[in-house]
Amino acid sequence: MKAQGQDGRQGGRPGRFLSQVPVEQALDRWFAALEGAGAAALSPPEEVPTGQALGRVLAEPAYALFSSPSYHACAMDGYAVAAASTFGASDTSPVALAMPEQACYVDTGDPLPQGFDAVIMIEDVQELGGGRLEIRAAATPWQHVRPIGEDVAAGEMLLPAGWRLRATDLAVLTSAGLGRVVVRRRPVVAVIPTGDEIVPLEDLGGEAPAPGQIIESNSLLVAGLAAEAGAVAKVLPVVPDDRVALRRSLSEAIACSDVVVLGAGSSAGSGDFSAAVLREAGEVVVHGVATRPGKPVILGVAGGKPVLGMPGYPVSAWLALDGFLRPLLARMLGQAPERRQRIDARLTRRVASPLGVTEYLRVKLARVGGAFVAAPLSRGAGVLSSLVRADGLVPVPAERQGFEAGTTVAAELLRSRESVERTVLAIGSHDMALDVLADLFARTNPGCSLASVNAGSLGGLQALSRDEAHIAGTHLLDERTGEYNVSFVRKNLPGRRVALFCLALREQGLLVSPGNPLRLERPEDLAGTGARLINRQRGAGTRVLLDYLLHLAGVDPASIAGYDRTVYTHLAVAAEVAGGGADAGMGILAAAQALGLDFLPVAKERYELAIPETSWEDPLVQRLLDAASCQAFRDAVSKLGGYDLSASGDVTWVEPEGA
Amino acid sequence: MKAQGQDGRQGGRPGRFLSQVPVEQALDRWFAALEGAGAAALSPPEEVPTGQALGRVLAEPAYALFSSPSYHACAMDGYAVAAASTFGASDTSPVALAMPEQACYVDTGDPLPQGFDAVIMIEDVQELGGGRLEIRAAATPWQHVRPIGEDVAAGEMLLPAGWRLRATDLAVLTSAGLGRVVVRRRPVVAVIPTGDEIVPLEDLGGEAPAPGQIIESNSLLVAGLAAEAGAVAKVLPVVPDDRVALRRSLSEAIACSDVVVLGAGSSAGSGDFSAAVLREAGEVVVHGVATRPGKPVILGVAGGKPVLGMPGYPVSAWLALDGFLRPLLARMLGQAPERRQRIDARLTRRVASPLGVTEYLRVKLARVGGAFVAAPLSRGAGVLSSLVRADGLVPVPAERQGFEAGTTVAAELLRSRESVERTVLAIGSHDMALDVLADLFARTNPGCSLASVNAGSLGGLQALSRDEAHIAGTHLLDERTGEYNVSFVRKNLPGRRVALFCLALREQGLLVSPGNPLRLERPEDLAGTGARLINRQRGAGTRVLLDYLLHLAGVDPASIAGYDRTVYTHLAVAAEVAGGGADAGMGILAAAQALGLDFLPVAKERYELAIPETSWEDPLVQRLLDAASCQAFRDAVSKLGGYDLSASGDVTWVEPEGA
Repeated sequence: MKAQGQDGRQGGRPGRFLSQVPVEQALDRWFAALEGAGAAALSPPEEVPTGQALGRVLAEPAYALFSSPSYHACAMDGYAVAAASTFGASDTSPVALAMPEQACYVDTGDPLPQGFDAVIMIEDVQELGGGRLEIRAAATPWQHVRPIGEDVAAGEMLLPAGWRLRATDLAVLTSAGLGRVVVRRRPVVAVIPTGDEIVPLEDLGGEAPAPGQIIESNSLLVAGLAAEAGAVAKVLPVVPDDRVALRRSLSEAIACSDVVVLGAGSSAGSGDFSAAVLREAGEVVVHGVATRPGKPVILGVAGGKPVLGMPGYPVSAWLALDGFLRPLLARMLGQAPERRQRIDARLTRRVASPLGVTEYLRVKLARVGGAFVAAPLSRGAGVLSSLVRADGLVPVPAERQGFEAGTTVAAELLRSRESVERTVLAIGSHDMALDVLADLFARTNPGCSLASVNAGSLGGLQALSRDEAHIAGTHLLDERTGEYNVSFVRKNLPGRRVALFCLALREQGLLVSPGNPLRLERPEDLAGTGARLINRQRGAGTRVLLDYLLHLAGVDPASIAGYDRTVYTHLAVAAEVAGGGADAGMGILAAAQALGLDFLPVAKERYELAIPETSWEDPLVQRLLDAASCQAFRDAVSKLGGYDLSASGDVTWVEPEGA
Repeated sequence: MKAQGQDGRQGGRPGRFLSQVPVEQALDRWFAALEGAGAAALSPPEEVPTGQALGRVLAEPAYALFSSPSYHACAMDGYAVAAASTFGASDTSPVALAMPEQACYVDTGDPLPQGFDAVIMIEDVQELGGGRLEIRAAATPWQHVRPIGEDVAAGEMLLPAGWRLRATDLAVLTSAGLGRVVVRRRPVVAVIPTGDEIVPLEDLGGEAPAPGQIIESNSLLVAGLAAEAGAVAKVLPVVPDDRVALRRSLSEAIACSDVVVLGAGSSAGSGDFSAAVLREAGEVVVHGVATRPGKPVILGVAGGKPVLGMPGYPVSAWLALDGFLRPLLARMLGQAPERRQRIDARLTRRVASPLGVTEYLRVKLARVGGAFVAAPLSRGAGVLSSLVRADGLVPVPAERQGFEAGTTVAAELLRSRESVERTVLAIGSHDMALDVLADLFARTNPGCSLASVNAGSLGGLQALSRDEAHIAGTHLLDERTGEYNVSFVRKNLPGRRVALFCLALREQGLLVSPGNPLRLERPEDLAGTGARLINRQRGAGTRVLLDYLLHLAGVDPASIAGYDRTVYTHLAVAAEVAGGGADAGMGILAAAQALGLDFLPVAKERYELAIPETSWEDPLVQRLLDAASCQAFRDAVSKLGGYDLSASGDVTWVEPEGA
């Protein structure tokens, strides 16, 4: 069972095809099968101290034991009186009362003394001395008295079954005399990570994983989701690709838990025994759902317990947990799963998606010019970081082949709407100084964030032209003028005033293996030698620079091996060289340093933020620029190495032509 | 210091008036003073295992230690090949490859073998035997390969400082090699409950509190809010009204916590030492804010720690915690406090509110006929149950004297919008069968709820006429016809079709002390005897019935003591009698039984749900009626006693006159 394994395809032995059951149908079938097997019971009740019941779900309605207050309580500091003895009192005919027969001093919370039925506030009373008081207004019966049961009457139903307890609930239960409450026991979810290649992080002893080793991390998805749903997870030891071992582990899991999640092993590849083992132990109800990613899901039941086979790729795993484990746990607790809030947003680019499956796009969201935009992130099932960075999920319905750019789509929020509204969205060129800025911005402006989507310099300017981002990082060299960015801004944002805020001058160079084994000096040295380049995508400023340098040297790019193989960030270039997949790539010093590579400087370039006037006027963007202008930012970027901060903070306004 | 004490007034010694600082100004002043005293620091960082960091806040940005994947990984089960060796392959000219030189079987997750740069899926390959394969389509370089760093590149910033960690974050941190993360330590909030009358529930040994005893419950508000904000609470022993003891407890609290919350003692009453004690130990920055409830707040600093003096009344306490403790804790964790979602809703009745203070109305929310309505709940600072039952808070700004009925107001949601949308709102007469139904409805329809606001039968019909509720419980006797409800529906909902769904026939009677010491038999026995009645509010069906019976007996209500003293529910009537505040009241058997009273039956009445046709057609209402029609409901109501279920579920349609 290939953990972090195959996804979305029929693999393995010929003829072993997965089904494509729509998600809702799959869930219904599973729940029906669980009911049939007596495995769909509500989690049993247990009694816990009220003070420890925050977030727990009531298994029974809670009835008040005592009234609150349990006596007629004085609600003011002052004097208890019999209202009848004050009738007629006014400024012109004050009434005098004798203590203690006719009036009696009380503090707030004191019981109303016998024979009295009202309280007069202390500031409305004149003490005459000699144990006498004067009042100048009549008291109405029961004024400033909290009668028995004002808050809670004994016997009253305080909260119904199925209620999730909040702080205020605990306080009212306690004040009604309930020191313990009957709640649903937290369901226990056992997780069995599987796969020969899967290794717990702690077993690595600080070393990087060897080729063929994948760090076990999906159990954290299960544990986190379980905790959020009011359950607890029990992570079992990793099971290798061994049918007998998996069978044994499944039995143990069934014995010690209420729900079992089998890690990976849910596609039909050669090492994937989950379905077979589950079939032996119980029943496979669904194997394969019509989603992308996340197809190779197994839903079943064994030993009277629900069993969920989770795909290996982390995004697929999360979707399976979100789509099936979350509703199951809600059901066991007698609750409905909370649906996420939705907002309408304009999709920044065209997305094609196959008919017949529901695809879940991960999107970065921001409010630009008053409307929400959704920028699709990586669609790879293995790219968990895309889920981390996502603000929302956009389902592409099975009956659609995708969305055109500019389509208004409904995004399910993964962060609060408010935090989305406090996000500055940068689409464009990647730079590590942007990460530093994001960190500093969040620190100095709690609740605010800078989100960055890599689309290359040109992609960023085009996004600005469509109002799909607030700012764009850009370092585009005009080969005719030797000037950075200005002509590209003018061309891509015609008719608009745009500021170019210089973040830093930075060195670009060749990233090569330590010791520079091929003795390279300049990009042109790669030509015709068979040395393998890893390149950046079209529209990336770094690629424009490389092309410029090759052009100056009279070298045909086609003569360089790997010229057509591209990645999207400096760090991805560095990782590729460090991993031996390429001999060199263009990038920045910080990326070389991060991965221990040698760096051969070839040019210094101007990395700027392009900011249309509309964004410039946004207070949130101004706060970002404040952060980008402060000494802490300069210090942090200097530490990265390879940056010249002499021009940082310089602003050039690009005026529209003819203006 | 009167715990659960005085609120919203200047009390205590003459001349000791509280200030009325607007909330935002108060917060700013407090934070400025804390900064001046060096007491506003971020909570210090601590390292914790990543697996235990759910919900924690990063103190530093997290950088990837390893790339993920850390090697070029096969993304499919199939054969690794060199793409160059497959060029030209097609259906008409298949290419044969020799194993293991030209192709090599791989599972998903395997490292890409040396010398190969692509993977062909197993289903696209024909095994020819003799260690040979046939392919009919060329492979492109790097197809079905996950390159090093596809998900995460070593050195990459994964998450910025200030980020609250979710399940997906923990998984990506782990897969990038981070077994531990640096997070902000959870701030420790010490709570000191104060007041002679305050008694921990566990000290009561199961007995009801004696007159003058109040169960300590505000510390649960502090603990719950702290937990939700990512902090932990430490509840200290209750301190009596003793200045020296409070001074000592404050010192201990300062020594063992990061923030101190002083319970109660924040008004200016005779027992209220908090401000004085805080002034001795440090500084009082604000004493009194312009809100209602919640005025007597103290904001200060002592021993380098923030100190919050919390009012005694629970609603006031909660508002103070929400308004001051929540932002403080967010600040200590480097976060912005989350603002609540808001929705626009139509206020069901007029609310007058004093100028100069911001009043926080607690409202019940529901979606009726496509629009949200907000029904104000009790405004008492001591009525914590109103906060428990509230779905939203509606601030009445200081510069307004209230709202007219029908005004569209912005409600801050205390529950999710979705759960509000799944709420059936009943305004009208109170009946314990409604509580039973609410419990059953929530059990059988997870996520759905029945909310009930007591406004009397007539109030309910009027609310229906304004589309402010879905249904109304009603038991109004037409003295002319002896028929229940029909004529009242016709009069109050003219021109509309309305269903009357009979919930039950129920016995009404006199609730009297056990043993019936005054030997009462019928309501008319109260007349002229000095026996004290506790009555229901105007428009309540129970009151209409009482009036009818008195009228039949020829008795003038004015001759009955207590006729004008009213409460809103059967249980409140029972509590009043049980507490000795009255000798008798009209009510239902269930209420008598709940509080151990004697019950003298006087009439059987028809308790029905009035349901306008528009509500009747709402699927949510139909699900409620399904619950009201099932045997479990009948069984549970029978157990209450005093109900006749022979007519339950009968539906009478009231047609508009002339229809």
